[in-house]
Amino acid sequence: MPSDIEIARAATLKPIAEVAAKIGIPDEALHNYGKHIAKIDHDFIKSLDGKSQGKLVLVTAISPTPAGEGKTTTTVGLSDALNRVGKKTVACLREPSLGPCFGMKGGAAGGGKAQVVPMEQINLHFTGDFHAITSAHSLAAALIDNHIYWANELNIDVRRIHWRRVVDMNDRALRSINQSLGGVANGFPREDGFDITVASEVMAVFCLAKDLADLEARLGKIVIAETRDRKPVTLAQVKATGAMTVLLKDALQPNLVQTLEGNPALIHGGPFANIAHGCNSVIATQTGLKLADYVVTEAGFGADLGAEKFLDIKCRQTGLQPSAVVIVATVRALKMHGGVDKKSLATENLEALEKGFANLARHVENVRSFGLPVVVGVNHFFQDTDAEHTKLKELCRDKLQVEALTCKHWADGGAGAEGLANAVVKLAEGEQKPLTFAYETSAKLADKVKAIATKLYGASGISIDGKAATKLAGFEKDGYGDLPVCMAKTQYSFSTDPTLMGAPSGHTITVRDVRLSAGAGFVVVICGEIMTMPGLPKVPAADTIRLDENGQIDGLF
Amino acid sequence: MPSDIEIARAATLKPIAEVAAKIGIPDEALHNYGKHIAKIDHDFIKSLDGKSQGKLVLVTAISPTPAGEGKTTTTVGLSDALNRVGKKTVACLREPSLGPCFGMKGGAAGGGKAQVVPMEQINLHFTGDFHAITSAHSLAAALIDNHIYWANELNIDVRRIHWRRVVDMNDRALRSINQSLGGVANGFPREDGFDITVASEVMAVFCLAKDLADLEARLGKIVIAETRDRKPVTLAQVKATGAMTVLLKDALQPNLVQTLEGNPALIHGGPFANIAHGCNSVIATQTGLKLADYVVTEAGFGADLGAEKFLDIKCRQTGLQPSAVVIVATVRALKMHGGVDKKSLATENLEALEKGFANLARHVENVRSFGLPVVVGVNHFFQDTDAEHTKLKELCRDKLQVEALTCKHWADGGAGAEGLANAVVKLAEGEQKPLTFAYETSAKLADKVKAIATKLYGASGISIDGKAATKLAGFEKDGYGDLPVCMAKTQYSFSTDPTLMGAPSGHTITVRDVRLSAGAGFVVVICGEIMTMPGLPKVPAADTIRLDENGQIDGLF
Repeated sequence: MPSDIEIARAATLKPIAEVAAKIGIPDEALHNYGKHIAKIDHDFIKSLDGKSQGKLVLVTAISPTPAGEGKTTTTVGLSDALNRVGKKTVACLREPSLGPCFGMKGGAAGGGKAQVVPMEQINLHFTGDFHAITSAHSLAAALIDNHIYWANELNIDVRRIHWRRVVDMNDRALRSINQSLGGVANGFPREDGFDITVASEVMAVFCLAKDLADLEARLGKIVIAETRDRKPVTLAQVKATGAMTVLLKDALQPNLVQTLEGNPALIHGGPFANIAHGCNSVIATQTGLKLADYVVTEAGFGADLGAEKFLDIKCRQTGLQPSAVVIVATVRALKMHGGVDKKSLATENLEALEKGFANLARHVENVRSFGLPVVVGVNHFFQDTDAEHTKLKELCRDKLQVEALTCKHWADGGAGAEGLANAVVKLAEGEQKPLTFAYETSAKLADKVKAIATKLYGASGISIDGKAATKLAGFEKDGYGDLPVCMAKTQYSFSTDPTLMGAPSGHTITVRDVRLSAGAGFVVVICGEIMTMPGLPKVPAADTIRLDENGQIDGLF
Repeated sequence: MPSDIEIARAATLKPIAEVAAKIGIPDEALHNYGKHIAKIDHDFIKSLDGKSQGKLVLVTAISPTPAGEGKTTTTVGLSDALNRVGKKTVACLREPSLGPCFGMKGGAAGGGKAQVVPMEQINLHFTGDFHAITSAHSLAAALIDNHIYWANELNIDVRRIHWRRVVDMNDRALRSINQSLGGVANGFPREDGFDITVASEVMAVFCLAKDLADLEARLGKIVIAETRDRKPVTLAQVKATGAMTVLLKDALQPNLVQTLEGNPALIHGGPFANIAHGCNSVIATQTGLKLADYVVTEAGFGADLGAEKFLDIKCRQTGLQPSAVVIVATVRALKMHGGVDKKSLATENLEALEKGFANLARHVENVRSFGLPVVVGVNHFFQDTDAEHTKLKELCRDKLQVEALTCKHWADGGAGAEGLANAVVKLAEGEQKPLTFAYETSAKLADKVKAIATKLYGASGISIDGKAATKLAGFEKDGYGDLPVCMAKTQYSFSTDPTLMGAPSGHTITVRDVRLSAGAGFVVVICGEIMTMPGLPKVPAADTIRLDENGQIDGLF
């Protein structure tokens, strides 16, 4: 069986202008980056204002396991399948992060016959969007320390600077540093640290901004520090936002590429799914909706985190609403949720499947609680048995009254997901209810967390550490009480214990810390250890990545 | 009078394929970045092997003063002028650095009617080359600390790591840091610091590499640390070079843009001119020479630094040889060398001009000592008087037997530099002598420094600080004694005292420190304070840079 990269390299790509023409983007609206990637011009996007919109399909998943679910491949495969059944469709995906490519993980552009291409560029520098975000973030950091260096007229408390630095690399040595050492010429020594670029609030803002003006306004609201008398200091106050917007101007234009079947895909932005909302840019999604009948997009992690944030944050801020939601599951992953260990996944086990089904069931019910129609996409693996697939479909039908469809897009491309495509069309063109959010933004911040925990996580309640409670009260006092909350907890469980698989109930969600992301427009609620700067493993992928004799990249995927 | 940016924006740019066609680059060899920028494909460049080469013209200058000389405008203007007089010509320039754009300086793409365009992209992210270099450098840094974290099998002494980190931003707070703080999970605490990206040895290597294989080999030779028993540790030993080369693969393809007159310009790479050699990539220069009758290129700072390194390092390593050298001077700058202060430059002052002429004279003699034909380009400023220009030409003719030509390319484009172009052609097509270097590489490292100091700087001798002498001896012991030296001293004077203008003699050049750049292939000799991470001024340009109502960048230039 050929590898993902072999399949991708064997593909004959269409000129990007041809892909663009499929959805009515004229040549002059394209900024090419080589022959197979283009950015879509801001002015063209502005010209689409007022056009009617296509239907939005959200792809989310059960709680992830080491067995893998295939959310990105399903997004790509479903998009190809919708194109096959006569619906002009665009896939909207997140951009992969550069740093992790040199650690353990391979690329993030789908797999098998459900990939976006050219995968090497997409996984490496692509069109430089993340570099632009790193530059904008770094400029803000330099301006903050420069402000303090010269006169500190804003009276910034160097012990209370919330704006860390970023680099798009897995570099644990930079997690915690002391900076401005070495004497008077280098500033006032203080503690600091680096996160990976995808954890930058600039990334979250970039992905939620409606246009350049909104981007600049949101950047200006970011709270970067406190004064000696505990007043919030914003990026606007250090005069960073104009220059940051200039650095982000080109990057904010969505990137057009193609699936292996030559259908359009917009890949744009990629915020963390824990301390941020974890989905591609609003601009890409809205541009897709103006140009196509259908847009298929994905949200990070399982539906408890990804779909919840997609709906309560992104949809609430922008007015977007999915017409159908696909929850991706696999027989393998459900068996793990039912207690099977990774080594035994190749063996048929209907009992474990039924036990693990509880995880899928909770996600289906949760998504329905938002008022949305749901279908289950069962991503097929070659070791799965027919009996397992039949059993899973029966469980879905009998216990949840939800349709489940076996998908073989990994092996067969769009043809393998036509059943899912037809089911999605049926739902999306059926009756639609108004979106019901998990909470109202007018509630107290703690009550919003409680609503998510009890309604969606099956928790009996929440517990907020003293320091976090004080900070929440401070946010409310400073006028940030109306923001939605962005939950940062383990993606592996409905609880905060990553080993509690299936559908645990009655647990308590403990809030350890909270952070304000005033530009992105949410309060991050941290429940457990959240890593914002990964490290490299003992034998990193970088050790064996190289150019081969033919100039092809070896070892990356 | 319209500003540089107004002139640039008013220009009608040709499609880049049309510019490429002028020098025989076919469409399929171009990787477009928008409509007016393209990278030239590696395979096409390889296909030029064995083709005959055009003539190389080096543009250098007198010792810089606050009055400005206009080396880049002369390079662009001369290139346009050569095209006007029937010589197919390519300009080869350095890429501007992003960080300084937000401090004091404006862009670096020429000025007036002698500019390269599109200037906004060129001055900001351009094609992402510097971001790729930052990424490659950062990956190496992460791999070094990761090696130490897991087992430190190479026995790296954490007190003797020479590989600092880089960011393309003016950020004094990062000059000196303590890193890997915060506990066991974050590594072994140690001192470190950041330089600006242009100071990275990756940048120097990038600009000296003949091709991808040479790039990888050079990266592998970079000495990044010492072991506990003082043996050098290289980047190859931490297995960084394959992945770094992958990150740099696309970046190593030269960038094609155009002058305001639609002539081709290659803008590629931009190493510091003090701790590195300060000129654009070898690949760009050699590609230009295969495609055009003439290549006009510039070297950083004055001829004492820029031209010396261009010849003794770049030409020696690659076999390149200029057919003519242009030394750029201005009446204003020579008056400053003659003792006039900046406020009085608008007043005619023939006496000061004659006094300051000594600086030009020394540079002319120096360049001739390499066996090269020289012409002086006198860059015209509107306050200059005719008497001053006449006087300067007479001095050149009578005292140096060198032709000097008034150039008005800033006001008139290529038409304003036709005289210079004709003079250059006459020299370049005249008799050529073999290149005589300032020293032989077989000499002791200290003797190479002494040769440059006494022959070119007018010094009576050199003095080497104890620590630097010990390090030089160590380099010779470790097998690096045959490398050329790369002088890092003030650009404002032939001495190490920036206030000693004109042509001082009899001074001593004091070597304060030395550094090994084994990948670039030179030993850096530091004479005085060298800043490798600039800071921002009290009121940085960033404060007022923004997008205006029409989406145009305001305040950058």
